[in-house]
Amino acid sequence: MGAIDSLADKVLKGDVRATAQLIRRVDDGDKEAFSDLAKLYGHAGRAYIIGFTGSPGVGKSTLVDRIIARFREDGKTVGVLAIDPTSPFSGGAILGDRIRMQRHFLDDGVFIRSLATRGKFGGLTRSTADAIVVLDAMGKDVIIVETVGVGQDEVDIVNSAHTSVVVTVPGMGDDIQAIKAGLMEIGDLFVVNKADRDGAGKTVREIMFMLQMNSNSRRFDGWETRVVECVATEAHKGVEEVYATILEHKRYLEDRGKDHRKDLERNRAFGQLMDLFREGLFERALNKLGGEQVLEVIVQDIVSRKNDPYRASLQLLNSVMNEVSN
Amino acid sequence: MGAIDSLADKVLKGDVRATAQLIRRVDDGDKEAFSDLAKLYGHAGRAYIIGFTGSPGVGKSTLVDRIIARFREDGKTVGVLAIDPTSPFSGGAILGDRIRMQRHFLDDGVFIRSLATRGKFGGLTRSTADAIVVLDAMGKDVIIVETVGVGQDEVDIVNSAHTSVVVTVPGMGDDIQAIKAGLMEIGDLFVVNKADRDGAGKTVREIMFMLQMNSNSRRFDGWETRVVECVATEAHKGVEEVYATILEHKRYLEDRGKDHRKDLERNRAFGQLMDLFREGLFERALNKLGGEQVLEVIVQDIVSRKNDPYRASLQLLNSVMNEVSN
Repeated sequence: MGAIDSLADKVLKGDVRATAQLIRRVDDGDKEAFSDLAKLYGHAGRAYIIGFTGSPGVGKSTLVDRIIARFREDGKTVGVLAIDPTSPFSGGAILGDRIRMQRHFLDDGVFIRSLATRGKFGGLTRSTADAIVVLDAMGKDVIIVETVGVGQDEVDIVNSAHTSVVVTVPGMGDDIQAIKAGLMEIGDLFVVNKADRDGAGKTVREIMFMLQMNSNSRRFDGWETRVVECVATEAHKGVEEVYATILEHKRYLEDRGKDHRKDLERNRAFGQLMDLFREGLFERALNKLGGEQVLEVIVQDIVSRKNDPYRASLQLLNSVMNEVSN
Repeated sequence: MGAIDSLADKVLKGDVRATAQLIRRVDDGDKEAFSDLAKLYGHAGRAYIIGFTGSPGVGKSTLVDRIIARFREDGKTVGVLAIDPTSPFSGGAILGDRIRMQRHFLDDGVFIRSLATRGKFGGLTRSTADAIVVLDAMGKDVIIVETVGVGQDEVDIVNSAHTSVVVTVPGMGDDIQAIKAGLMEIGDLFVVNKADRDGAGKTVREIMFMLQMNSNSRRFDGWETRVVECVATEAHKGVEEVYATILEHKRYLEDRGKDHRKDLERNRAFGQLMDLFREGLFERALNKLGGEQVLEVIVQDIVSRKNDPYRASLQLLNSVMNEVSN
């Protein structure tokens, strides 16, 4: 009788299989997903997005597992996107790590997926933004995005979350250096996990010191970045404080930090639009040129130094633009 | 009398200040650098490029320092590009780490620069490829690119080197996991640094095991990936073997692996052309639209869910293409 439901329709009804299928398409860079995403977009925008980042081995997944459980206790539904750096063969090797989260698999209120972003269209930021739209439209109250934080893409992803949590462990002097180099200015909350190890206090003080030194680099005026110690493998050692601080930051954005929240959402929309526009342009231009294969002659001239990529790219640009303007 | 030398002319004469200036422009994404780069490109293509990657704290800089010294002993000149993940305020915080390399600063045969890639035009891969062209044209025999390896960009950079070295340390079980997830298939040589620590043998065996498990994912047929133990802080504990293995891999590419070398160079040229083309398209299209500011109305419609980024990007694409085609 009625028309067959699109994936988008099914996602809006909370269909888990359709959601998984659409996120897979998004991850594969399949542009057929766009019509579904466009449908879903108007239903999205209600979820609260939390980013977790930190080096491998700091216990992010264990902590995220605890935080999921706390949100569930409070009656919130949760979507989790675990970002795995692309790897042709591992195909999400870090997934094993996420087994700790699997106890939520039988819980309808929790939806967990890894993104490996093998798709060609756009990169990690594009597919993550799209997957957030899907989980948001599906009705999840909270979306947690977990990344291994070093690449710029991953920093951008966490930076576009409402609340951004940077996880570290004691005694990683060099890790602190990595924090300094890229993560210091994106954390609303720093968690020193495995705080039962030696040196936890020192690590807290180091982070505090760096925060004071760089107070003008904070994400938000009016929010004092927190540093919380915790042992995520145990239920009652700081996890509650992490959770409470996340909620406090959420209230801050809803109340005093409303403008910041608007800026975040504006920036996320802008970033998503630009990523799609940039990739769409590239794709159309390549089609006009006749596909990547046609470029092989030019590339061979570059390899043999008869041409150079700077001149050749201008030649290509002019040909695409000219072809279009006549 | 004669015309004033361009930066490119000066670089070709080995002028260190001009080289530093041009690399800074490249890093800033300054498109005025392109005419100089185009001039230099024909003089480049002779350097041997080696990539070093690994997590923060594994001792990459110390090892690179030793390898520089060995190339110098063998009469080779060396250029080093240290890739710092972008940070608005740290502006290359990890530079401190590179002080260990500073003993080469008085040596004319060594040129070391950090890239922080704050430039908007293109990203890390674009600026690194350009800086390699500069150092190559300047006449450096060997170019070493050092990255903190997790982001996809950084993996791509190291993967485009002639020889790719992945550095790790004993006892980082989680680090091994990170290797699995992204670096396993790009290493021609794995170095277990700080091998005087407990567990070095175990780490070597773990890497060996993963290499055997994934032998079809090797970069090159015919090259058996090596795993070398070393203590980079000491001159005679494995550094020589790392150096010898790099040279062996170089000879392999020159001899049995010639086709692989051609593929690498073709891929590097192709990647550089595509990065420039993609960014150029985006820039021209934005100009046609009247700059990013003009997009604000559209972005506001997206934020308020009157529009969505998928439809809006198509509208923008059509307007840019149509405008051009009339």
